[in-house]
Amino acid sequence: MKLTILFGGASFEHEISVVSAITVKEKLSSFDLSFIFCDGDHKFYLIEANKMKATTFSKQLHKKMPELTLTNGGFLQKTFLNSTLHTNTVLNLIHGSDGEDGTIASLLDFYKIKFIGPRKEACTFSYDKRYTKYLCDAIGVKSVAYELLSREREVNLSLSMPVIVKPASLGSSIGVSVVKEKSKLDYALDTAFEFDSNVIVEPFIEGVKEYNLAGYMADGKIYFSIVEEPQKEEFLDFEKKYMDFSRSEQVRHAEIGEELSNKLKSNFEKIYRGMFEGALIRCDFFVIDGEVLLNEINPIPGSMANYLFEDFPASIKALSNSLSYAKKANVHYNYIHSISQAKGK
Amino acid sequence: MKLTILFGGASFEHEISVVSAITVKEKLSSFDLSFIFCDGDHKFYLIEANKMKATTFSKQLHKKMPELTLTNGGFLQKTFLNSTLHTNTVLNLIHGSDGEDGTIASLLDFYKIKFIGPRKEACTFSYDKRYTKYLCDAIGVKSVAYELLSREREVNLSLSMPVIVKPASLGSSIGVSVVKEKSKLDYALDTAFEFDSNVIVEPFIEGVKEYNLAGYMADGKIYFSIVEEPQKEEFLDFEKKYMDFSRSEQVRHAEIGEELSNKLKSNFEKIYRGMFEGALIRCDFFVIDGEVLLNEINPIPGSMANYLFEDFPASIKALSNSLSYAKKANVHYNYIHSISQAKGK
Repeated sequence: MKLTILFGGASFEHEISVVSAITVKEKLSSFDLSFIFCDGDHKFYLIEANKMKATTFSKQLHKKMPELTLTNGGFLQKTFLNSTLHTNTVLNLIHGSDGEDGTIASLLDFYKIKFIGPRKEACTFSYDKRYTKYLCDAIGVKSVAYELLSREREVNLSLSMPVIVKPASLGSSIGVSVVKEKSKLDYALDTAFEFDSNVIVEPFIEGVKEYNLAGYMADGKIYFSIVEEPQKEEFLDFEKKYMDFSRSEQVRHAEIGEELSNKLKSNFEKIYRGMFEGALIRCDFFVIDGEVLLNEINPIPGSMANYLFEDFPASIKALSNSLSYAKKANVHYNYIHSISQAKGK
Repeated sequence: MKLTILFGGASFEHEISVVSAITVKEKLSSFDLSFIFCDGDHKFYLIEANKMKATTFSKQLHKKMPELTLTNGGFLQKTFLNSTLHTNTVLNLIHGSDGEDGTIASLLDFYKIKFIGPRKEACTFSYDKRYTKYLCDAIGVKSVAYELLSREREVNLSLSMPVIVKPASLGSSIGVSVVKEKSKLDYALDTAFEFDSNVIVEPFIEGVKEYNLAGYMADGKIYFSIVEEPQKEEFLDFEKKYMDFSRSEQVRHAEIGEELSNKLKSNFEKIYRGMFEGALIRCDFFVIDGEVLLNEINPIPGSMANYLFEDFPASIKALSNSLSYAKKANVHYNYIHSISQAKGK
């Protein structure tokens, strides 16, 4: 099965994407893979499979590889005498901005390239945590209470400590801190505001039960991963999460009953249907007094949450085979013709 | 002042965009304008100013004009011996899909081109009427009650007649009908489902007071247009709205008191701030028993609602001068370096 891994991006999670791509390469070794790297300047490069290691990018060696440009139907590689169009289905593995904010989805749709990944509306509702809350409220999925702070307005927090402070629109724990004493709130906010002009503050619930569930849709049916209870310290900071993005060892089922498992699945399905088609996503839930609350949607989870699927290559294959192109309206000129006639032109 | 009008698009509103561009050309005759046309196949063409008439496109004459491709910093025109990069600020005048759904915004942001128009998140919340309702609920702006119908599910409408049936994600009244008798509902739904798999049904309020207000932000301040009470028949169908998109005669202020005028402005501002920066939008409101309800957000109004502004060229100039590029994260390889060391690679 042919597939192109698209990774990199002008994002604070650029490095995470590189690690993620290297991991997915290993997990999909049975595929006929190719690799396209988007650098911090939004240039695309075709990367040879045997050059898929972190130092290729940190040492800027990619700049010596063939540059590609987006064009109708694929990525175009021009050589001295002729050109090659790379038309494979793309796995969008750009975490954070570009990949998860709707930009890459728009580009691939516009240039009629099939891809695995969230579409642009799904990106809006998952990239910015504020909009995830809007979505939850609208579709009847419970989420953690929160307050929104803006860089421009005075901080007036009514939540009591401890709280968790998050930039509204970043993943991978970048800029996130747990604040236990009010005196340390300002520093945490300053950190978060470095990454986003909007910051979400939520109560930090010590020892809360957390469960992760991934899934995707193929042929109209949702296929779920196993449920994981992440082994966690208080929370994973960036460096730990970074390591986490190269995870490739299958985890074991969380020890939960069928009732809770079904509740998690039904919440996942409410979020997924009509919004995330085309993507493999991971939803992170909290369970408080038997009630399921959405913590976060990861529309492009690290290394595609491969470790949660019993047969990861089969999952990617099924998803890939059920993709469709973005619908495009047919253009006609009926009204111009009729109006031209009416005007006598 | 230099400005490029980008119009066309693979959209049911393609023709409307052509008419809109021709009108804006007349209204901005004091500008140094250029014109880029996006055809139904997503190819870009540079259109000479004197060829800016509807028949150029309906007769496909644009295909003889220079083709452009998107690249970092602008639209690239290649000639036999050299190439020109068109780097002007763009006015996104593509109505409907492509222009208003976030695709064009993503493309222009990605390629670092400044533009007037809604950014991608703003598109998500205004293009699909469902998400406009989510937004209204979240920010405390009242909107008309509605029911959502999906093509896949059985119709089970609890609203009583008359109702107005709208495809969730189209403008310009395409696929919209007013239904007065239940026996005619099926036909109206079939029509709407031709354009979208989700349909919004709202109570149709005969003789409701309607007011349109446009505005934009420049230097942190919102500038409002005059308030218009649209002269309407029951509602404008596509053909009438089409004509409406070429409007260029200044309208007169609606005869409303300061209290209502302020209410409209305050609702507009709630919608605009933090979401529509960079765009000139028009909000269409209903007023029922003194209460203001949002009917629709037009993030790229027909002919940029020029007829609502006392000095339209000055408005576009002010907006254009306050635009900024999309922020791009700086890419570094700190973690790869530290992890490479930790791994001894």
